[in-house]
Amino acid sequence: MSRFQPVDPDFAARIRDSFARQGAMSHLGAQMMRVEPGEVEIELAYRPEVTQQHGFFHGGVTGAIADTAGGYAAFTLIAADATMLTVEYKINLIAPADGETLIAIGRVVKPGRTLTICEIEVAAVKGGVTTICARGMQTLIRLEGRPDRPAG
Amino acid sequence: MSRFQPVDPDFAARIRDSFARQGAMSHLGAQMMRVEPGEVEIELAYRPEVTQQHGFFHGGVTGAIADTAGGYAAFTLIAADATMLTVEYKINLIAPADGETLIAIGRVVKPGRTLTICEIEVAAVKGGVTTICARGMQTLIRLEGRPDRPAG
Amino acid sequence: MSRFQPVDPDFAARIRDSFARQGAMSHLGAQMMRVEPGEVEIELAYRPEVTQQHGFFHGGVTGAIADTAGGYAAFTLIAADATMLTVEYKINLIAPADGETLIAIGRVVKPGRTLTICEIEVAAVKGGVTTICARGMQTLIRLEGRPDRPAG
Amino acid sequence: MSRFQPVDPDFAARIRDSFARQGAMSHLGAQMMRVEPGEVEIELAYRPEVTQQHGFFHGGVTGAIADTAGGYAAFTLIAADATMLTVEYKINLIAPADGETLIAIGRVVKPGRTLTICEIEVAAVKGGVTTICARGMQTLIRLEGRPDRPAG
Repeated sequence: MSRFQPVDPDFAARIRDSFARQGAMSHLGAQMMRVEPGEVEIELAYRPEVTQQHGFFHGGVTGAIADTAGGYAAFTLIAADATMLTVEYKINLIAPADGETLIAIGRVVKPGRTLTICEIEVAAVKGGVTTICARGMQTLIRLEGRPDRPAG
Repeated sequence: MSRFQPVDPDFAARIRDSFARQGAMSHLGAQMMRVEPGEVEIELAYRPEVTQQHGFFHGGVTGAIADTAGGYAAFTLIAADATMLTVEYKINLIAPADGETLIAIGRVVKPGRTLTICEIEVAAVKGGVTTICARGMQTLIRLEGRPDRPAG
Repeated sequence: MSRFQPVDPDFAARIRDSFARQGAMSHLGAQMMRVEPGEVEIELAYRPEVTQQHGFFHGGVTGAIADTAGGYAAFTLIAADATMLTVEYKINLIAPADGETLIAIGRVVKPGRTLTICEIEVAAVKGGVTTICARGMQTLIRLEGRPDRPAG
Repeated sequence: MSRFQPVDPDFAARIRDSFARQGAMSHLGAQMMRVEPGEVEIELAYRPEVTQQHGFFHGGVTGAIADTAGGYAAFTLIAADATMLTVEYKINLIAPADGETLIAIGRVVKPGRTLTICEIEVAAVKGGVTTICARGMQTLIRLEGRPDRPAG
């Protein structure tokens, strides 16, 4: 059971729809897995298009899916007519992102009327072994009365 | 004139070669522009493949090119047989990344034997107007005797 | 000339008064020096009461005066009936804080209706030589209609 | 049981001795409570000497005891002839630090040969109710062959 109670019962559909409109995530090949109140999981399969120069997952890509997982974790707890923007994020790359799959999990630490704080964690799965490769924190701001849609 | 003196006179060629091997950067369409001692500039043209759900540049992509610019800025100051890894980065998204082009600049603040600190800044250019959209800091670690090449 | 225009012409007096009510700052011996629109400087003289175990200025104290300098830099730009709270700060300790005096400067990078972003820098002065010993970033939130006073 | 195995069996005595030499911590009134492998707890009683202008615990003081708790958590896992320095820390102040006591806990997330990553958490206790008021992350560097003593 989640310790958070979502305001919008249809939060999961709303979030999956928003994620599908993120051109960058589909271009990288990221997939949204679990969507629960206050927690979202994103997966990214290994391929040369997501690597840095040593052949591991790129640290910036690791940060990008972590930012997205945290952003949508915060998004699960807001009303249908609001949107959520990242204010800042900080991520420590604590082990090489080496594996077949990268799994980013965003978790709400403190939801707020204006600001929400999330923790973000990324693990690399290699041959069935899961290793945490990044940990971070993220601050988000809620914009009310601004549906999560492109302008125009 | 730069206030830093590179150890490897061929640093620019080495860095452009390393950047070319970053599958993620070419997949996103990022291009390396200026490479100077302690400062590197990366450009990213707008297209749907780099956006978030409102149609702006994705915050995670903004962070990814900033991380890369800072990483290579640090890279300009090390010996040819060493490599540089990001320890952590923190980025504030201070304005919508709205424009035709995103320009990320990484600058070394403090080079060190083991750790190097960079500041990272990203600007969006729209109709000729440049707006700073992100600011951050980054810590990197130098690994000596480990050339910047994939293993094997 | 500052690039910022303060809303409250009496901002400097208001800020010096607020700083004087910070028990922690006077207990540490910190003094407010320059107060300009978007920029504030705080000084701390060396004494055993502000050290870590090696006899340098304590990193947490360095962070505390940096947080305070940044907070009041943001404070210079708000109305008289508002207050400012730190959302988060991140600081890199880039050299030993070794000297007779520590000087922390907070500068507004991006003022905002809700959030303000500052950069913070701390220098140690030793025998007339100034060395940057810390650099960081800070996010602050403005609370309107809440004067900067203790409740009750 | 801790998931970490200390290298130095006398780590707790060594850490309590080091903490006792931190002039800033005793001046603020901070006390070292639990010292376990990879985890350290520091307590600070409320008094006017540790406050900000609204009468709550000062955010910079909150950060200072969190930095100290994390630093000593990392310190528990190193050899007797080494020392540990903070590279950087980032802290989110997520609720007012309002109470009779502040409790900072530092926990090692990833110990390393050169760098160690900690998470830091601070809670305020008011009338028996404990509220998390800050969360952060910290990066530390180990210096070998440099005992934790003032030079000279």
